Amino acid sequence: MKIAILGGGGFLGRKISALLARDGKLDGVSVTGLTLFDVAPPPVPEGAAFPISAIGGDVVALPAAAIPADTDVVFHFAAVVSAQAEADYDLGRRVNLRGTDAVIDACRALRKPPRVVFTSSVASFSGGQDAILPDAARQIPANSYGAQKAMAEILLADASRRGFLDAVCVRLPTVTVRPGRPNRAASGFFSGIIREPLLGLEAELPVGDDFAVWICSPRRAMDWLLHAAILDSALMGLDRSVTPPGISVTIAQILAALETVKPGASKLVKRVEDKAIADIVGTWPAGFDPLRGHRFGFGRHESLVELVRAFVADDLEATRADRGL
Amino acid sequence: MKIAILGGGGFLGRKISALLARDGKLDGVSVTGLTLFDVAPPPVPEGAAFPISAIGGDVVALPAAAIPADTDVVFHFAAVVSAQAEADYDLGRRVNLRGTDAVIDACRALRKPPRVVFTSSVASFSGGQDAILPDAARQIPANSYGAQKAMAEILLADASRRGFLDAVCVRLPTVTVRPGRPNRAASGFFSGIIREPLLGLEAELPVGDDFAVWICSPRRAMDWLLHAAILDSALMGLDRSVTPPGISVTIAQILAALETVKPGASKLVKRVEDKAIADIVGTWPAGFDPLRGHRFGFGRHESLVELVRAFVADDLEATRADRGL
Repeated sequence: MKIAILGGGGFLGRKISALLARDGKLDGVSVTGLTLFDVAPPPVPEGAAFPISAIGGDVVALPAAAIPADTDVVFHFAAVVSAQAEADYDLGRRVNLRGTDAVIDACRALRKPPRVVFTSSVASFSGGQDAILPDAARQIPANSYGAQKAMAEILLADASRRGFLDAVCVRLPTVTVRPGRPNRAASGFFSGIIREPLLGLEAELPVGDDFAVWICSPRRAMDWLLHAAILDSALMGLDRSVTPPGISVTIAQILAALETVKPGASKLVKRVEDKAIADIVGTWPAGFDPLRGHRFGFGRHESLVELVRAFVADDLEATRADRGL
Repeated sequence: MKIAILGGGGFLGRKISALLARDGKLDGVSVTGLTLFDVAPPPVPEGAAFPISAIGGDVVALPAAAIPADTDVVFHFAAVVSAQAEADYDLGRRVNLRGTDAVIDACRALRKPPRVVFTSSVASFSGGQDAILPDAARQIPANSYGAQKAMAEILLADASRRGFLDAVCVRLPTVTVRPGRPNRAASGFFSGIIREPLLGLEAELPVGDDFAVWICSPRRAMDWLLHAAILDSALMGLDRSVTPPGISVTIAQILAALETVKPGASKLVKRVEDKAIADIVGTWPAGFDPLRGHRFGFGRHESLVELVRAFVADDLEATRADRGL
């Protein structure tokens, strides 16, 4: 099985490529080649038993080598994140929408239609704190990032119907805890209020303790994205998008889980108003009723305490080292 | 009030420009200028008391003169129709999606955000003969034209939220009876089975007599599009799309109305299988429950017999003359 990862230098791309390098298989099938693409050539994970190439470039002018002719699975993660897409309309529209056109056109040129696993987002919905949305809910985005993700879902579903490719669009919850440094995603603080205190650092919280958010762990995101790569897409019909079963949790519940793992850590969380951030995340629905996700075999989520412990086990030391702490 | 019509040479564009030229006003406000844009410079209607310019070009490379700096209302009708967008993916995506980007970018350059009235379509939904869809229904298009229209709705809603323009997207039912010749829309036969027999010509019918379709008359479409130009868009919230109150009718009901207006005419309708056409229209929902349309003041539809009589009154002689019959 030959795999290409667009956005291979990002958080999800690095996690997936490290997993593939470690396991050498996807759903029991040997991986025989991996191509990583990003703005700059992504880091190549060590220890793989198959060849890996790393390519840098512009997703809108996608080099042919980014998706080799015999590619079976494309993970399309290349995107401009939410706060950045809101700050720079042209950049967001170009990368998030024109970039998806370029991926479709590259797939049309392949020998056979590849599976394309696309990361869409909870931000493609609105409704805010009162909304628990069913699968049939209309996407009414309240930010440009969500609008671009919703459009890319439609582009990929149409390209699948036409036989250009075979897409599964996974609407990821807010992935928490992200390792590393804060990025420009509006949702960054959900990770920050866990990660930073575990590093002994202060973190800013721009919403109230009763604010509810739909999240998933990086472990569960990886599990779902790999499942999306091998899922029988005929189950999906015309609608190639799926909301996997995340968990709806409040800030108070997150802080309680943090206290369970490291007593006293939540004192490092400082309430700091940030209207721009609160306005963006305040439009996202508090939860979903992900019946299709269950039906298509996306795994159930672990508890919030397990989510915090998994960050400690998987990413805390590497984050500390990366940041020179 | 200054008005620009993109797609000014098409069926809807010519109807609107003729109405504006005749009335000289929109919602009681004098029209002070009209710009018509299409692939070729559109015909200029006679008798207007205000200046009219006609410009030809490519909507994706929209000339600045197509939307003058002091434009108040843009009617954006420029599109590749359904069967053509299905036959030529690149052309449909370019005109229907990239063209809408170009319109947004042109509007951003204006002195103030104009009202943009966009024609979306019932083809942006699926569900087929069993579906009567509520306003909250998710758009799951079953054809590239519908996909491109659904994406353009999202683009225009996001551009409205950002203050680049002030869009109202009207999801027109299948406009029936269209005058002139058959065009490449998959829905063309719904008009053909009324228009052609009234001209004394045979018409082909590719679906059964119990097939239900959501339609509106050209008169009602004009009324709705002019209403969309002056509607208070603050009522709409983030969702700038509206399904106006069309009527759900069966082929048998259409043929009965034709018989009422011209006894014997329905004998000219020939049952001819066309799987490509039947497959496209067979995915469109049979009807809608257009509560938002009523709430926003879109006028109720007249009866089917009135619809047929209006074609005879408004368009039959001109169609006969145009076609040299």
